[in-house]
Amino acid sequence: MKFLFIGDIVGRAGRRAVREIMPDLVKEHNIDLVVANGENAAGGFGLNKKVAEELFEYGIDILTMGNHTWKNKGIFKFVDQEPRIVRPLNFAPGVPGRGYSSFLKNGRRITVVNLIGQIYIGPHDSPFRIIRDQLDTLKRESDIIIVDFHAEATGEKGAMGYYLDGKVDCVYGTHTHVQTNDAKILPKGTAFISDLGLTGAVDSILGMKSEPIVKKHLTGLHTKFEVGTGTVQLAGAIYDHKENTIFPVRINDA
Amino acid sequence: MKFLFIGDIVGRAGRRAVREIMPDLVKEHNIDLVVANGENAAGGFGLNKKVAEELFEYGIDILTMGNHTWKNKGIFKFVDQEPRIVRPLNFAPGVPGRGYSSFLKNGRRITVVNLIGQIYIGPHDSPFRIIRDQLDTLKRESDIIIVDFHAEATGEKGAMGYYLDGKVDCVYGTHTHVQTNDAKILPKGTAFISDLGLTGAVDSILGMKSEPIVKKHLTGLHTKFEVGTGTVQLAGAIYDHKENTIFPVRINDA
Amino acid sequence: MKFLFIGDIVGRAGRRAVREIMPDLVKEHNIDLVVANGENAAGGFGLNKKVAEELFEYGIDILTMGNHTWKNKGIFKFVDQEPRIVRPLNFAPGVPGRGYSSFLKNGRRITVVNLIGQIYIGPHDSPFRIIRDQLDTLKRESDIIIVDFHAEATGEKGAMGYYLDGKVDCVYGTHTHVQTNDAKILPKGTAFISDLGLTGAVDSILGMKSEPIVKKHLTGLHTKFEVGTGTVQLAGAIYDHKENTIFPVRINDA
Amino acid sequence: MKFLFIGDIVGRAGRRAVREIMPDLVKEHNIDLVVANGENAAGGFGLNKKVAEELFEYGIDILTMGNHTWKNKGIFKFVDQEPRIVRPLNFAPGVPGRGYSSFLKNGRRITVVNLIGQIYIGPHDSPFRIIRDQLDTLKRESDIIIVDFHAEATGEKGAMGYYLDGKVDCVYGTHTHVQTNDAKILPKGTAFISDLGLTGAVDSILGMKSEPIVKKHLTGLHTKFEVGTGTVQLAGAIYDHKENTIFPVRINDA
Ligand SMILES: [Fe+2]
Ligand SMILES: [Fe+2]
Ligand SMILES: [Fe+2]
Ligand SMILES: [Fe+2]
Ligand SMILES: [Fe+2]
Ligand SMILES: [Fe+2]
Ligand SMILES: [Fe+2]
Ligand SMILES: [Fe+2]
Repeated sequence: MKFLFIGDIVGRAGRRAVREIMPDLVKEHNIDLVVANGENAAGGFGLNKKVAEELFEYGIDILTMGNHTWKNKGIFKFVDQEPRIVRPLNFAPGVPGRGYSSFLKNGRRITVVNLIGQIYIGPHDSPFRIIRDQLDTLKRESDIIIVDFHAEATGEKGAMGYYLDGKVDCVYGTHTHVQTNDAKILPKGTAFISDLGLTGAVDSILGMKSEPIVKKHLTGLHTKFEVGTGTVQLAGAIYDHKENTIFPVRINDA
Repeated sequence: MKFLFIGDIVGRAGRRAVREIMPDLVKEHNIDLVVANGENAAGGFGLNKKVAEELFEYGIDILTMGNHTWKNKGIFKFVDQEPRIVRPLNFAPGVPGRGYSSFLKNGRRITVVNLIGQIYIGPHDSPFRIIRDQLDTLKRESDIIIVDFHAEATGEKGAMGYYLDGKVDCVYGTHTHVQTNDAKILPKGTAFISDLGLTGAVDSILGMKSEPIVKKHLTGLHTKFEVGTGTVQLAGAIYDHKENTIFPVRINDA
Repeated sequence: MKFLFIGDIVGRAGRRAVREIMPDLVKEHNIDLVVANGENAAGGFGLNKKVAEELFEYGIDILTMGNHTWKNKGIFKFVDQEPRIVRPLNFAPGVPGRGYSSFLKNGRRITVVNLIGQIYIGPHDSPFRIIRDQLDTLKRESDIIIVDFHAEATGEKGAMGYYLDGKVDCVYGTHTHVQTNDAKILPKGTAFISDLGLTGAVDSILGMKSEPIVKKHLTGLHTKFEVGTGTVQLAGAIYDHKENTIFPVRINDA
Repeated sequence: MKFLFIGDIVGRAGRRAVREIMPDLVKEHNIDLVVANGENAAGGFGLNKKVAEELFEYGIDILTMGNHTWKNKGIFKFVDQEPRIVRPLNFAPGVPGRGYSSFLKNGRRITVVNLIGQIYIGPHDSPFRIIRDQLDTLKRESDIIIVDFHAEATGEKGAMGYYLDGKVDCVYGTHTHVQTNDAKILPKGTAFISDLGLTGAVDSILGMKSEPIVKKHLTGLHTKFEVGTGTVQLAGAIYDHKENTIFPVRINDA
């Protein structure tokens, strides 16, 4: 069973990267399942129905989310009915959507969980305790458990890796839009990488045009952020469950 | 002219990595100059005279610092007299030490600048405006300018890269203790990588033993952090000024 | 039934304020019950057994805590056996101590709850949802419910007041060490004040000597904080449950 | 010379408070000069030309600003030509507007300075060092110096008070929208209060309707904030320069 995990897809450029780069990658590596982070897929912030459907059409199986989940209010209307979209499990109980999704693939019961951090990323209930309290249930329902930990601080991401080491199959990070070079198998066997990185425009800051961002840092003035253009990259990781290997992928369209 | 940049050296394990791994790396790649981040070199937090001298003995030419600069008060006593230690330039004017250091190497005047971010890393004057205001002076005095941008947020790091693109030779990030996989030449020619990563214990969270950190995230209780042990890694990047290439290196001792 | 609520008691100066000022205040206003915040009572940070007993001796009935709860590890050893100490209810389940305490006074069952915020004060599970989920239980066991909301952001404090308005008898804030001038009865009848303020040295910044704090802001260097001395004040609020009135008190010893 | 300082004016309700309450207050206390914080005067966020002119018409002499200064881009067009609007002096050099304003009143040269904090309120250059570096100039040009320190953390506000004690005439805080009860003369003679408080709707959280704010805290979902309605209050402080006294005022319109 081989998985492709795709890092935060940023806007039109990111979706183009998926469309142009993913098919060959899936074929070349015999990928069975694709999980992608979709929190920036619509215009750089949030997700909407049209964009989600576009991404599913390209072959993405599951979309995870993050701190931009609720940016587009339209998501309220369809997310409850869409088992392929998973928002952080440690969001407030009762909000729309689900925190994990389980399904059959090649005879295996796969569960994809989305968690969000607490450090530098807004107030949330502890992702450590939420996953701890639901782990028995998840394990009973699943052959393979995958966790997208959407977080900023590298320390919190590493802590989640170690906490879930030996308890789930793979923990990967999203949110920083910069791929990390630390893919590894943790001591008790769980595959781990701190961040999958950016799927979007290469000539950009985190997928957005650089000029307004530089100007904002330089002046403190509000500037309008726009999705980058030009050459795009797909960033993520390939996880082979049987061999228990994980390695990053980052591929340009040019 | 070839540079080895070494990411945050964490405690005894990190110093061991430098001692055991650096010499071969320097030889193999014909490195002319080694710049390393030393803010965690003494016991995981801060730097002291003994540890600094140990690292210079191993062949490190310049030590840059970061948010842990003042952790060991002993540093006040020698940092003013030590041109090989550079603390953030955008620290308060008048505090001990220097924000950049210039020296001759192979007939070239090299300047190493240290900057610290403002996002999620404590209050500091703008690193963008400080470097802007001193750039002309630095350029007049230097053939090659290298910037260690010690920062947390990937967005701020990317912004610094783009801001200094075409103005300095190389901008690299430190502080997160996780190497990023985004080394590149920016559009106007400046070499860039978001973070050099951890020089220290492999089986660790950011160089420190994992158990107390996991426990802290799980319970909110204070725990005592200890430097990790076992296999060590040296993480950094090799920058070839002449060829204008940059690539990450991450090497285990075992 | 009249309550005196006392704001963060900072170190020896704060304890002196309690000893010297509280007795007359209690007598003058016919106070039935005194609740004080003790998170800074021992040396400015945390609480220990000796200091807690000293404060109970002065006539304080209940000590609430906050972000400095675990600063002194000695607290682990006695807090489970001490029903008069209440630490935030939204700390991780299973940590030492209790999040509320119920007891009989003048034939009424009084419950004092401690909550901690999420904004600018470290990661915690939502105080809003924790109190919501336990409110029915608390109401069944109590005639009067008092909430100390230990929080930084005025917006979060106001939100807690409105959220609990009509559900509990009184919500007051602690943590900022500056008394607010907004005591009022909220629309549905709950008494509210954003912060009780500082019990400690008057010539100080938040109860600590001003010079090291000013120096830290000016230079960014670490400085050693010390508890202030000289004239002291007791700050808090008097809440009359029967009349449903609340007003701030701030009294100097000189 | 008597001053009325008015705390953050929030939206239409806040402007109504100024119109209805200020005239009597000015008359009753023989106020010579009115300085008000206008950063929330237009719809709760920012300021525009129309609203500024409305407030000047009501008799406000000077408007200070804060973190919401640039919310309305229209402000760029007139703020450079409007000496009665003062935005934080420690904003980036070169941005529109001025950081202080000096003018003659009753034969005295009055200077009003606006500073913004660094703690929990976004990245800014040090307000301590900026005011330090300009203090000699300001003192040469002024008989009386007034500082509006727009900041969140009570510790930073107190530190500014002590730092400027004996160097300027009065330091008051804005931004938290909750009045503090700590008006005092500092040891070296400078008048001080941590926060002037809210000028706006009484039945509100910081001037905005409570329901969407409570919902946001409870659910984490984005909600639309609206300016509060109903009874309004004017909050601020009256500073008598000659007598060197300062006391808070908070007056309802009903
Ligand atoms: Fe995100
Ligand atoms: Fe993202
Ligand atoms: Fe650091
Ligand atoms: Fe570090
Ligand atoms: Fe506190
Ligand atoms: Fe406190
Ligand atoms: Fe503000
Ligand atoms: Fe405001």
